[in-house]
Amino acid sequence: MKIHDWATGPYPARVRIAIAEKNLRPRVTFVSVNLRKGEHKKPEFLAKNYSGTLPVLELEDGTFIGECTAITEYLDALDGAPVLTGRTPREKGVIHMMNKRAELELLDAISVYFHHATPGLGPEVEIYQNAEWGLRQRDKAVRGMHYFDGILKQQPFVAGEAFSMADIAVIGGLIFADLLKLPVPAECEALRAWYARMQERPSVKNRVTMSEPADASA
Amino acid sequence: MKIHDWATGPYPARVRIAIAEKNLRPRVTFVSVNLRKGEHKKPEFLAKNYSGTLPVLELEDGTFIGECTAITEYLDALDGAPVLTGRTPREKGVIHMMNKRAELELLDAISVYFHHATPGLGPEVEIYQNAEWGLRQRDKAVRGMHYFDGILKQQPFVAGEAFSMADIAVIGGLIFADLLKLPVPAECEALRAWYARMQERPSVKNRVTMSEPADASA
Repeated sequence: MKIHDWATGPYPARVRIAIAEKNLRPRVTFVSVNLRKGEHKKPEFLAKNYSGTLPVLELEDGTFIGECTAITEYLDALDGAPVLTGRTPREKGVIHMMNKRAELELLDAISVYFHHATPGLGPEVEIYQNAEWGLRQRDKAVRGMHYFDGILKQQPFVAGEAFSMADIAVIGGLIFADLLKLPVPAECEALRAWYARMQERPSVKNRVTMSEPADASA
Repeated sequence: MKIHDWATGPYPARVRIAIAEKNLRPRVTFVSVNLRKGEHKKPEFLAKNYSGTLPVLELEDGTFIGECTAITEYLDALDGAPVLTGRTPREKGVIHMMNKRAELELLDAISVYFHHATPGLGPEVEIYQNAEWGLRQRDKAVRGMHYFDGILKQQPFVAGEAFSMADIAVIGGLIFADLLKLPVPAECEALRAWYARMQERPSVKNRVTMSEPADASA
């Protein structure tokens, strides 16, 4: 299968982490889509993903699957032994809730801030901006950091006792915040400690270089 | 289990339809949360769902699960025979993609239009509005109608050959559009024909009255 993405993007990071957690790297070919040049908004790419977002999974049969949660569901189900999306009904429900909440309250809010209240990907890509909305979303994301800090004061992972795709979504949010130099407030100690732990996971640490050819360092 | 919702709401409709499709009505008690009075933004409700949205599922053990997709994952997994969220990896991936796309391109866009560019739930609930953003989202939703029309020209259901939670999400979008008198363009014939068929499904037709006491008509 192919992953169309951009190595340093926060959303691509979510799927790269999932690929590593599932040990699927040998089965994936990466195709780079130049975000800085707006290739993801061009007709050729929109035919693959109507929403014009990265990453996109391309299956052997030509099917394109966009949206990180959808791709993660696919990858996690491949071996019949899900470890990211939940096994029991309750696990599935809680993980999907926290995953969506990480998008709504943190990652997507930061993305809207980036595209609307900063230069974003530049004037050729950001053809419409609504700065007031973008700044509101930045404030929402900072509130979201406090929310997840409260969660992580009570439990080791975002959706409970085990690592899941909900952790990956929050990691994506904090990767985006890092890129924008939007700091996690100092008082969010539990969130900061959790993020330091997450950055030590090999799947998170090696996400950017995982698409480089194996002999790149040779 | 309990469902905290509001009988006529478009998002509550998604979970009500899922409950009916899974024949789970006898196991559910409905608790009404008054949207018009903004009860979903009050501290008592925010303790159940940080994001302040309906519906919310309350399990016997006191766990609250918000977000329609998460609740649907829970309900669909209960009997070990999923019919709404996919069985194979490919089905799961495509259904989750189309479900998310229905939110992004239609349902959530209409919701933002409602809350930001119309009186919404009234001045006591809509304490911040960004009309320009709301109108942009209305236009996005109309484009989304054309997108789903194109999909339904090619296949009988939103995610392919079978009814799924992706259909339910588009139905939620068109229920919201109906409430706001935002018409599906006449030229979107495939979408209109599909929606007419969907409205004949008992799960869709009886969604508002399903929470009434069984003896209400006696």
